[in-house]
Amino acid sequence: MTVWLPSLITKTPQEGYDLAVKLSRVAVKLTQPDAAIREKLRPEYAENFDALIASSQVVATNFATVAAANGYWKDTAS
Amino acid sequence: MTVWLPSLITKTPQEGYDLAVKLSRVAVKLTQPDAAIREKLRPEYAENFDALIASSQVVATNFATVAAANGYWKDTAS
Amino acid sequence: MTVWLPSLITKTPQEGYDLAVKLSRVAVKLTQPDAAIREKLRPEYAENFDALIASSQVVATNFATVAAANGYWKDTAS
Amino acid sequence: MTVWLPSLITKTPQEGYDLAVKLSRVAVKLTQPDAAIREKLRPEYAENFDALIASSQVVATNFATVAAANGYWKDTAS
Amino acid sequence: MTVWLPSLITKTPQEGYDLAVKLSRVAVKLTQPDAAIREKLRPEYAENFDALIASSQVVATNFATVAAANGYWKDTAS
Amino acid sequence: MTVWLPSLITKTPQEGYDLAVKLSRVAVKLTQPDAAIREKLRPEYAENFDALIASSQVVATNFATVAAANGYWKDTAS
Repeated sequence: MTVWLPSLITKTPQEGYDLAVKLSRVAVKLTQPDAAIREKLRPEYAENFDALIASSQVVATNFATVAAANGYWKDTAS
Repeated sequence: MTVWLPSLITKTPQEGYDLAVKLSRVAVKLTQPDAAIREKLRPEYAENFDALIASSQVVATNFATVAAANGYWKDTAS
Repeated sequence: MTVWLPSLITKTPQEGYDLAVKLSRVAVKLTQPDAAIREKLRPEYAENFDALIASSQVVATNFATVAAANGYWKDTAS
Repeated sequence: MTVWLPSLITKTPQEGYDLAVKLSRVAVKLTQPDAAIREKLRPEYAENFDALIASSQVVATNFATVAAANGYWKDTAS
Repeated sequence: MTVWLPSLITKTPQEGYDLAVKLSRVAVKLTQPDAAIREKLRPEYAENFDALIASSQVVATNFATVAAANGYWKDTAS
Repeated sequence: MTVWLPSLITKTPQEGYDLAVKLSRVAVKLTQPDAAIREKLRPEYAENFDALIASSQVVATNFATVAAANGYWKDTAS
């Protein structure tokens, strides 16, 4: 099986955010493994604000986890 | 009764993610124990983006718990 | 008044999950105390995937609380 | 102004759960202060499973806060 | 720019709850800055139970943050 | 690639709130990268209370993360 999640640790907050997006998308793939169906659904979804906001909520939840895992990157320059 | 959740501890983040998916599905089974009905519902659900995003949200919430239980696998190679 | 929640501490993660399911159901009962109405609503709800996923979300939220209360059962065999 | 929330500390988990229910209801009152309108809305809501589950989600979120505030009542007998 | 959030610290849990309500409303204002449109939308929303429960969920999420910031006001009399 | 998230650390709670709003919007952009489509969707969304409340929920979730990262700005004057 492919390793797609070797670690929750990232160098920067922004990479952590990208990881949160990835975590959000994998759940969709596991529920609907057929890429063709996902592609068919994508247009109606990406033009639907409810779906965009709901996706944003999933990313926010995953980002909370990734940020905690990284001690909030407190040593990163602000 | 079958033991399906002996521990929240996993070796890797990815196994932790798989456990989060499992935790999400068990709740559905407990609410609708009839496998035939669940199977009947599955197609319309797996082709519905709102449902896919909502499932992704449940996985994210459970992954937060599993990740915390594992100390975020901080010793895992990044 | 009946004591239905003497403690958040459980012996195993799986018992903790069962408690999370219980916590989720009690809120429904407190909002709709009439068992007859709840029974009437149950069929349409248990055959509706949106409702099943939403229930799963509530269980996930309560499981996070129960798991934290139990220190994630870190001594449990994995 | 009436003091309705003197403390988050409760003697038992069950009282903590009751407080979580109270916290959930106060937000509804603050958004719709007119009791007559709330009463008019209640029947359709209490017979709607989506609304019942959504209420259960709010209670779960508030219970997480109350439980953390009380150190999960770890000294309570299980 | 007006300072509307000088601190998350409040004297009592109840003031913390009020702050959570404020945090919830500001997000709506930032997304829809036009007060006239917000006022036009308010009646249909305040008479819609789904919207009332969803608002209650946002308040619960913000209250969790404010409560953590205040160490759950553990010194407050119960 | 542009650095849009150099740090989660902010000087004040209010700047932290602004960052939470930014985190919420970036997820929408990543899902729907076409600015023209986002602009087309915005009016119907900004005049829809369900969408406004859902956005507020995402901001609340991200604000919890930012607030934790900043130790809740406990040294800020109240």
